[in-house]
Amino acid sequence: MNNVQLWIVGSIGIDAIETPGEKRADLLGGSVTYACAAASFFTPVGAVGVVGSDFPAAFLERYRRFGIDLAGLQTRPGETFRWSGVYEADFINRRTLDTRLGVFGDFSPELPETFRDAPFVLLGNISPSLQLHVLDQARGQPFVVVDTMDLWIRIARPELVQVIRRANLLTLNDSEARLLTGHHNLLACARAVLEMGPQFVVIKKGEHGAMLCSKQGFALIPAFPVEQVVDPTGAGDCFAGAFMGYLAQTRVRRIDEPLLRRALLHGSVVASFGVEAFSTERLEKLERSEINSRVDALRSMSALE
Amino acid sequence: MNNVQLWIVGSIGIDAIETPGEKRADLLGGSVTYACAAASFFTPVGAVGVVGSDFPAAFLERYRRFGIDLAGLQTRPGETFRWSGVYEADFINRRTLDTRLGVFGDFSPELPETFRDAPFVLLGNISPSLQLHVLDQARGQPFVVVDTMDLWIRIARPELVQVIRRANLLTLNDSEARLLTGHHNLLACARAVLEMGPQFVVIKKGEHGAMLCSKQGFALIPAFPVEQVVDPTGAGDCFAGAFMGYLAQTRVRRIDEPLLRRALLHGSVVASFGVEAFSTERLEKLERSEINSRVDALRSMSALE
Repeated sequence: MNNVQLWIVGSIGIDAIETPGEKRADLLGGSVTYACAAASFFTPVGAVGVVGSDFPAAFLERYRRFGIDLAGLQTRPGETFRWSGVYEADFINRRTLDTRLGVFGDFSPELPETFRDAPFVLLGNISPSLQLHVLDQARGQPFVVVDTMDLWIRIARPELVQVIRRANLLTLNDSEARLLTGHHNLLACARAVLEMGPQFVVIKKGEHGAMLCSKQGFALIPAFPVEQVVDPTGAGDCFAGAFMGYLAQTRVRRIDEPLLRRALLHGSVVASFGVEAFSTERLEKLERSEINSRVDALRSMSALE
Repeated sequence: MNNVQLWIVGSIGIDAIETPGEKRADLLGGSVTYACAAASFFTPVGAVGVVGSDFPAAFLERYRRFGIDLAGLQTRPGETFRWSGVYEADFINRRTLDTRLGVFGDFSPELPETFRDAPFVLLGNISPSLQLHVLDQARGQPFVVVDTMDLWIRIARPELVQVIRRANLLTLNDSEARLLTGHHNLLACARAVLEMGPQFVVIKKGEHGAMLCSKQGFALIPAFPVEQVVDPTGAGDCFAGAFMGYLAQTRVRRIDEPLLRRALLHGSVVASFGVEAFSTERLEKLERSEINSRVDALRSMSALE
């Protein structure tokens, strides 16, 4: 059995989503799902998550077709986490209609032996105490990326601050950055995050791209302009999964800014494909050559001189 | 007397502005003011506008220090156009408190003889019928850029469509693009605008930069991340004025996409300085070398590979 280069912990869910264009139920979702699918284009990746006894075998088959290592997937008696939400006309703002935690409510992530030495770790959006619990099972000095959300900033700030202190890179969106730091200006937000410990922070701005900040400086990562957004769910997870997969693929242990820029560009591109269909449906048809073409296109769109 | 390379028509006003940080009255404002000041770093520029008899001589002196040609400036008995507004905490959304048209209500722009052969024309934000009226006085085949606002899209669409048909390039912000075309997706908006006549459209996204679109393709123009926004008023006018000034400076008559990208990058940078103070106060202290440094910095922040 091969050891994975990257493992990703987070939620696995069955989603019901309504967009201005369409209404779909029983969709494979969750941060682990999107992030692992996106990472799988670049590197062997392992999923750490929990599903209920109702989780369809067909969904497991979809993970396997991405080549995702499921050694860290627990199946527990009970219902899989379910989320339903509706997007406004802008395809950005969304309202949660219903959340049923199911087996996710008692999730205690366990890291398989074959994951423990992986050099790259993505702590996807779950409670900071679970992020800490699973990170404590890793060995060596992995490059740790932490994602989070407004809920944890509000209700679990002390634990979140502990996770952030152990992160090499924190990724969060603009409104979360403002909520976490109390600043409005994103440069001020970024500086405040760097003070908390990480070497790098990536502030995601959705269709406007992302900003990479370190003590050395700033980089602007464009988003690929998508013609037809079908479902934006999981875009941030695809972004993080793909850039981590790209980093892991390079096998470079010294992560610097130029390498991160390239990795984030690939994350941006994979996310742009992800939103072109519900769930991981677009990623299932995606070819590595399509990623490369869009990376080239985005580079040429953004070329200044 | 030298002929100008670029003339700009639009509003001249005296503003009272309240931001989350500060409250200021009796500020020199208006689209012509910002755009001409920004253009003046690159090329001889002429202003076409109207002021009332109350317009302070000190403001005229500020125009002259920018080297702005005032042959197209009318002084009429009555009050100068006045606008007052208040910005929300995000420094983006704003509410108009009061508008007093004054002499601007009867404005009928006249193009001085020395402006008529200028190869570059910026029709700043005034009513489309005035834009047409003044454009009809130009000779030759100038490169015409049209700016507009939501008001004209709502109340003067037929005239606006006529102006747009005669534009080489239309510039408008994202919400205006959506209002004008009825599309939400900005690529779809851009295509719809190109169908209306212009070769190019620039969709401005404020702090998120701008998108240049033509039938040949797309370019993403980043915004320089500003540490401390003091007053965003006039940012779009600075952007348009500076990129037109840059184009005029090159003396190239065949405007293509690579040249436009460079011009827009300079527009983006000058706008980033403009918002660092009220009115044109930052531009008054601005050196061309500071523009060049920030252009280099923005290029390196946006470099992909």
